[in-house]
Amino acid sequence: MQPTSRTIPSRSAKRAHYDEETVYSILDEALFCTVSCVINGQPFSIPTAFARYENVLYLHGSVGSHFIREIEKGIPVCITVMLTDALVVAKSAFSHSVNYRSVILFSTAEKIEEYDKKVEVLKWITEKIVPNSWGYLRPMTESEVRKTTVLGFKIEEASAKTRTGMPNDEKEDLDLPIWSGLIPLRSGRGIPVADDFSKNVPLPEHLRHLS
Amino acid sequence: MQPTSRTIPSRSAKRAHYDEETVYSILDEALFCTVSCVINGQPFSIPTAFARYENVLYLHGSVGSHFIREIEKGIPVCITVMLTDALVVAKSAFSHSVNYRSVILFSTAEKIEEYDKKVEVLKWITEKIVPNSWGYLRPMTESEVRKTTVLGFKIEEASAKTRTGMPNDEKEDLDLPIWSGLIPLRSGRGIPVADDFSKNVPLPEHLRHLS
Repeated sequence: MQPTSRTIPSRSAKRAHYDEETVYSILDEALFCTVSCVINGQPFSIPTAFARYENVLYLHGSVGSHFIREIEKGIPVCITVMLTDALVVAKSAFSHSVNYRSVILFSTAEKIEEYDKKVEVLKWITEKIVPNSWGYLRPMTESEVRKTTVLGFKIEEASAKTRTGMPNDEKEDLDLPIWSGLIPLRSGRGIPVADDFSKNVPLPEHLRHLS
Repeated sequence: MQPTSRTIPSRSAKRAHYDEETVYSILDEALFCTVSCVINGQPFSIPTAFARYENVLYLHGSVGSHFIREIEKGIPVCITVMLTDALVVAKSAFSHSVNYRSVILFSTAEKIEEYDKKVEVLKWITEKIVPNSWGYLRPMTESEVRKTTVLGFKIEEASAKTRTGMPNDEKEDLDLPIWSGLIPLRSGRGIPVADDFSKNVPLPEHLRHLS
């Protein structure tokens, strides 16, 4: 992607990436993003689930949501995603950092009106959260599809920013007898917990290998 | 806190909380927030570390950061935080949800200029990331403090939104032989990994019990 004045970071520009592969891999790993927009001149943001397919990021929401109604007009939005990999513990507080992979995307919504395309996007969003589950679930009804707004955001003005590796302490601090290194931040899916209406239902294959 | 038109959610208003205890507990558990503002009429947002003390949320950043220079002017910001506890897997895609605890805060920056207060806030931010570590680290220098901007945001217009519990499937779906329940989302600190400059330094007490 072409860097723009908005996607070139003012700090640590060497940590920025503009290739689709890096941007897409972060978007595909993250389950949630934060969508920001301007309403009546004021900033407003909301965390939500999303999915990417080709060069479009998709969100969904209730047709009754005030926020969705604003952004479906096509006003400018800024979407950010952050994956945190480790706390970077240096010998000085000033050199502390975080190993992260983040994406910033500037775009505007295109409302998906076509019925079959809406259903397809809802499948992508559902299967991002629980892979391979769509065909197992009770099929969506027309009424449910109608109650849901689906928005697509072209990924054209975006960049990734990443930090990896060990602390970068000042040279004069390196010999200090102070521990420095990484504290990994772990995240993942745990063991499924059935509700009262699934006591006699076997855990399906696609949930068995999730954790 | 007093609910306002901006902090009352347009959907699932019963999931909203306005008491300090709920809002503060989410802010204190989350390591990162997303700060949004309006620059030249456009939305802009950035994920960053933060700490809360009493009724103020504190951020820090480089004095050279374009974003920090904008928000230190006192323009309106929207700060969001989300903790995700579980994926809520229902018998229909439409009833899928997420168990989360989020906060939305509208505020404006107050720049902390007083030297000792700046150092104190930097201690809070550092010790949120690595509790009890401040006194162990190489002390901050005056030059490092000068290179850092510290901003405080009063927590007055804020709300929390939380979802807990099992899926809420439609009554007519409850007897379907489809598995429903929760997939916990786990996150936490892993086992510390020393860098090359700490091979002979014992892991300090405050890092030993972190994972």
